[in-house]
Amino acid sequence: MRVAAPHWLPLTTWARMICPAEEGENNDKFFTHPKNAKALAAYLFAHNHLFYLMELSAALLLLLLSLCEAPAVPALRLGIYVHATLELFALVVVVFELCMKLRWLGLHTFIRHRRTMVKTSVLVVQFVEAIVVLVRQTSHMRVTRALRCIFLVDCRYCGGVRRNLRQMFQSLPPFMDILMLLLFFMIIFAILGFYLFSPNPSDPYFSTLENSIISLFVLLTTANFPDVMMPSYSQNPWSCIFFIVYLSIELYFIMNLLLAVVFDTFNDVEKRKFKSLLLHKRTAIQHAYRLLVSQRRSAGISYRQFEGLMRFYKPRMSAGERYLTFKALNQSNTPLLSLKDFHDIYEVAALKWKAKRNREHWFDELPRTAFLIFKGINILVKSKAFQYFMYLVVAVNGVWMLVETFMLKGGNFVSKHVPWSHLVFLTIYAVELFLKVAGLGPIKYLSSGWNLFDVCVTTFAFLGLLALAFNTEPFYFIVVLRPLQLLRLFKLKKRYRNVLDTMFELLPRMASLGLTLLIFYYSFAIVGMEFFCGILYPNCCNTSTVADAYRWLNHTVGNRTVVEEGYYYLNNFDNILNSFVTLFELTVVNNWYIIMEGVTSQTSHWSRLYFMTFYIVTMVVMTIIVAFILEAFVFRMNYSRKNQDSEVDSGITLEKELSKDELVAVLKLYREAEGANSDIAQLLKILSQMERYEQNTLVFLGRRSRTKSDLSLKMYQEEIKEWYEEHARKQEKQQRQLSSCTVPATQQSPGGRQRSQTIT
Amino acid sequence: MRVAAPHWLPLTTWARMICPAEEGENNDKFFTHPKNAKALAAYLFAHNHLFYLMELSAALLLLLLSLCEAPAVPALRLGIYVHATLELFALVVVVFELCMKLRWLGLHTFIRHRRTMVKTSVLVVQFVEAIVVLVRQTSHMRVTRALRCIFLVDCRYCGGVRRNLRQMFQSLPPFMDILMLLLFFMIIFAILGFYLFSPNPSDPYFSTLENSIISLFVLLTTANFPDVMMPSYSQNPWSCIFFIVYLSIELYFIMNLLLAVVFDTFNDVEKRKFKSLLLHKRTAIQHAYRLLVSQRRSAGISYRQFEGLMRFYKPRMSAGERYLTFKALNQSNTPLLSLKDFHDIYEVAALKWKAKRNREHWFDELPRTAFLIFKGINILVKSKAFQYFMYLVVAVNGVWMLVETFMLKGGNFVSKHVPWSHLVFLTIYAVELFLKVAGLGPIKYLSSGWNLFDVCVTTFAFLGLLALAFNTEPFYFIVVLRPLQLLRLFKLKKRYRNVLDTMFELLPRMASLGLTLLIFYYSFAIVGMEFFCGILYPNCCNTSTVADAYRWLNHTVGNRTVVEEGYYYLNNFDNILNSFVTLFELTVVNNWYIIMEGVTSQTSHWSRLYFMTFYIVTMVVMTIIVAFILEAFVFRMNYSRKNQDSEVDSGITLEKELSKDELVAVLKLYREAEGANSDIAQLLKILSQMERYEQNTLVFLGRRSRTKSDLSLKMYQEEIKEWYEEHARKQEKQQRQLSSCTVPATQQSPGGRQRSQTIT
Repeated sequence: MRVAAPHWLPLTTWARMICPAEEGENNDKFFTHPKNAKALAAYLFAHNHLFYLMELSAALLLLLLSLCEAPAVPALRLGIYVHATLELFALVVVVFELCMKLRWLGLHTFIRHRRTMVKTSVLVVQFVEAIVVLVRQTSHMRVTRALRCIFLVDCRYCGGVRRNLRQMFQSLPPFMDILMLLLFFMIIFAILGFYLFSPNPSDPYFSTLENSIISLFVLLTTANFPDVMMPSYSQNPWSCIFFIVYLSIELYFIMNLLLAVVFDTFNDVEKRKFKSLLLHKRTAIQHAYRLLVSQRRSAGISYRQFEGLMRFYKPRMSAGERYLTFKALNQSNTPLLSLKDFHDIYEVAALKWKAKRNREHWFDELPRTAFLIFKGINILVKSKAFQYFMYLVVAVNGVWMLVETFMLKGGNFVSKHVPWSHLVFLTIYAVELFLKVAGLGPIKYLSSGWNLFDVCVTTFAFLGLLALAFNTEPFYFIVVLRPLQLLRLFKLKKRYRNVLDTMFELLPRMASLGLTLLIFYYSFAIVGMEFFCGILYPNCCNTSTVADAYRWLNHTVGNRTVVEEGYYYLNNFDNILNSFVTLFELTVVNNWYIIMEGVTSQTSHWSRLYFMTFYIVTMVVMTIIVAFILEAFVFRMNYSRKNQDSEVDSGITLEKELSKDELVAVLKLYREAEGANSDIAQLLKILSQMERYEQNTLVFLGRRSRTKSDLSLKMYQEEIKEWYEEHARKQEKQQRQLSSCTVPATQQSPGGRQRSQTIT
Repeated sequence: MRVAAPHWLPLTTWARMICPAEEGENNDKFFTHPKNAKALAAYLFAHNHLFYLMELSAALLLLLLSLCEAPAVPALRLGIYVHATLELFALVVVVFELCMKLRWLGLHTFIRHRRTMVKTSVLVVQFVEAIVVLVRQTSHMRVTRALRCIFLVDCRYCGGVRRNLRQMFQSLPPFMDILMLLLFFMIIFAILGFYLFSPNPSDPYFSTLENSIISLFVLLTTANFPDVMMPSYSQNPWSCIFFIVYLSIELYFIMNLLLAVVFDTFNDVEKRKFKSLLLHKRTAIQHAYRLLVSQRRSAGISYRQFEGLMRFYKPRMSAGERYLTFKALNQSNTPLLSLKDFHDIYEVAALKWKAKRNREHWFDELPRTAFLIFKGINILVKSKAFQYFMYLVVAVNGVWMLVETFMLKGGNFVSKHVPWSHLVFLTIYAVELFLKVAGLGPIKYLSSGWNLFDVCVTTFAFLGLLALAFNTEPFYFIVVLRPLQLLRLFKLKKRYRNVLDTMFELLPRMASLGLTLLIFYYSFAIVGMEFFCGILYPNCCNTSTVADAYRWLNHTVGNRTVVEEGYYYLNNFDNILNSFVTLFELTVVNNWYIIMEGVTSQTSHWSRLYFMTFYIVTMVVMTIIVAFILEAFVFRMNYSRKNQDSEVDSGITLEKELSKDELVAVLKLYREAEGANSDIAQLLKILSQMERYEQNTLVFLGRRSRTKSDLSLKMYQEEIKEWYEEHARKQEKQQRQLSSCTVPATQQSPGGRQRSQTIT
């Protein structure tokens, strides 16, 4: 039974709409696909970068508004009219987006989609509040602003953040279990501690059960150790056993257990995610294949069909690349692609193709003398001796810099004249740079990240020199960046290169984790600002136990003025930037109780709940970040141990030869089909290139960088085979069930998922 | 070619000496075996528990001496004569041990054995110093005492510590690499920080490069955050970026990288260790098999031979157990054991055999009425309702205790009369205990660790009640242990039970890790005492930046005396116990710089080296402890995920049936061979037991607790197969090489390893 293309759609749009290849990549759920022409129009409208950008900027605008709303950052304060209007505008944009989504999803799916529903309700609340602000002309207590983050989280571009949040929620149940264990021991020890130490009148930490619990909570973060122990320790030295046992159990055992549990859950979730994504892609590929094959009832996909598919899947691919992709996929050398060939489409389509240069060096075509000179430079630059000489220079520079800095005794160290050592080192670096560019050619030189880094650092150093020479104050910071040159030394050791490579591979994930943390920060910052704004100031907490940290005295001893500054009043919630810094300090946890106690002394005991909740939330997030870094590195190290022979550092490459005859045939095809002029022009260019060098074939190199998914594919090789088999069995079963049903029943089934499975 | 038993040895001694089964378990190197009669005598003398105990007590005595040597713990101070004589005595014991070892190993192996050589040189130094102390009659600066630990490490019983140290040294190279990265970034940031913040005169943290480096080192431990940031932050809010970037790179990235690297190396070392141990055991088993088989040139091991082997391998096994072990190994049911059967010897020999009771309950043989009553109790006790009721009681008790404690406002909370709530709860617990003992029988009841815990806690609570009732001050601490009853609640959830079970499984390893840490502590404590003893006292550091923490003022404000206590002078190195507490505080790292700065202000800048070294050493050890906990739990969780169906909690059990005929045959064998009377008596006892119950067979249950090795065996199942194959191939190759050599050449080879391989 074959489902023909709906008559109301031209083939191209239809291909775009249902193109499962694209879905596989986006991991859209099949049942959220548009179901009719109107819905399709909305779907197409809402799925392009322009719309995504609009979404993103509306969300960012909403978030940034908190810089200008009271309590605002002084320099950015805006009138109530201005920021309330801006807010309303951004909210209207969000309403528009939601309408589009409603139109595309249909009311039924829209209501069932949890994230969208939460977003809608937050939107309504925000809307009402914004109008209230405009009407009353004054900001009220708007804690709900903390929920604004959901607009950012829902953005198309923040898929990583959503994924992180999902993984966090998934690791929450076991985490909570261990957390309960932690809190349970804390309570037991608090009761014990209260009984043991409260008779000591000089011990303020255990005077009541509440104090006892709070002291032990803070002790969990070690922030009040050893102070918390001191009063009882001075009375009876053996009381230290209580604290040692508590810390050993709570800090060194249960906290690590927490990490282990999160690490384990995280790994498991990651693997399951990888599996489901892999199988989703597989299903999508099979749909696409069946669709393409069933259109013409052939035994495989012809180049023509494939070309049409790729045109929609990767619109920016050139005709030559499309043909190369087809060729790379086609391993049987028949004119048709089989399903087995087609399975690799995602991996192969991601390759970037480039003609392999038949000349080895950029200077091969220069006259003889120039060639010899450059060849010499090339050999020099590539020699070990040259490399080690440069490392030596950098090391000497480093030691020099250290000694030089050590000699300075503070004060006006930015001397007015340029020291000769800077000049010497900079000259050596500049010469190295020029030699390398000359020897390797600018393109090859800049293709390495490390060389790019060299160029940047050398340029900075040069700018710094200029700044020094002309004594321009604003560029002063560049001088300070000089020590970064020492980073070059890390090329020396394989392990460091590996670490840095892994770091770059992880960067996108790390960034999204960082963003997730920032989103939590934002929510807490808003809540903090609403409750604790303006309560911390110099000498604010003179009645509390942490008065010293907030003291600001300006008294005269003898004949000079002594300023006693506690500085902690700077860690306040007076505007969003200050709040962020304060929250970062709370994340680092050292001395966090000073901030907590300061705020508590100015408000009520319940403020502690805010700080404790924040600690637990950041503990979750930080544990997950640690677990992620741990997992990624352990994974990578395992991988490189498994594949010691193959080089790990380079990406994935594939070589394909293209003959003149093939090219002519493809060209003919395009001309017959009246294809786009640009395609034909590009093919002609390749042809002319071949003729120029009098070659019959041209070798192309497909290359892409390695992703985590590639590593996973290799690591789970054997398991993947099992998954595929299981998947195939399951599909077969479904197929059998479907074919045993009557046709009308199948067509009446509401979900899109079932419908797409009937296409065969 | 067959090497016969050396003629100068009776068979039993010889079997004991070469008994590879034992070697496999001890993991002794084959080449350290005694080579002649004299050596054997020494070997036998030095390898029994009496000798081991002597070794251990000499080492402990040496370590404990530091309690009595100046600077001694006040209560334990001994005269110079006394402690120096004690030291000399202990050292003489160590000399004796070493002589024995020399005799057994031979001079050549002795010198080649690195650990023994280090021990010898430390011994010489200690000896000389002890004599010098005796002669001069005063203790000089004896930093070398820090090396006394080596005597403990070398003890037979401290194999776990040696293993930990080895693993630590093995994970050191990658650790050092990452540490260099850490320090490198620290230096770069220190230079940057110096340039940026030293113009600010109110910022003491970055005034010189040295200060800058130290501030950032301390910041690495977060101990001075946010104080270190405050002076610059108050001048320019954007300076917080410097600190945020520094902490993100160093603390949150590189420190985690460190953990990842250690975790990875640790896992790898663990796996390799497991592999080598497994193969070592395999080789030992094969040697033993060949030896036993070649003695009689038979096709397998007969029971008689096996019995002789077990008599030496497990002297404390009874005759019945030996036969059961043989039967459990023998899977082919022929009278001879094949090599394949024999491979499982270690696993099977570790089983503890017990006759399976044919009665289900302990009260089955009681009269009808009693039986019914106990049966009822049994059903009640085993019911879910009863369990949950008890949980409810414990929970109510917990809440009650919390509320009760909360009501107390310090002061004389140990009331003179016994509160009725204690009585009620204790009565319920006692009733529960009696019901359970009655329902399950005392043996079955106490076989569960949880029930044992219940008994202990209830007994403690009862003792506490008595203490309260009779108002006996010294037992006061028991009252305080009451909250421990709440721990019972952890039986409720499977995850907690798993966690606790895993914890108990890990306890031996954890203990040896703790001991390793203590050994490091000891060395550092000695060094600390030698250098910093007596320099910290109240008001000692008034010139330093941390003067407040050491201040002790006793001044009068108005009409009452105010004591301002800084307490930090208590964290000193005045005797070894104080040093241990101080070092623990340094391990926790919070506020450690106060101790460091205090000591520095009283001595010189170089003291910081001590504290920084200690920090790095504990970082290594703590990272390894974290890695160990992480690895163990992740491993365990993976394991239980892989074997979801099988129960994880119980140990390994095996059932074997023993028929009367078999027993009679074995008995006959013993009588013929004129075996030990105890063996015959034991067998007769089993026989009479059978006759009493009129059974022809008796089922025995072999049981042992699961070890890490069992888990590893299951986890690495597939890899193990590969290892064995590889091992077999390698052995075959060696065999072939050997048989191609001429016989005299083989016999001349010096190493013991080669010799043992010629035995076939």
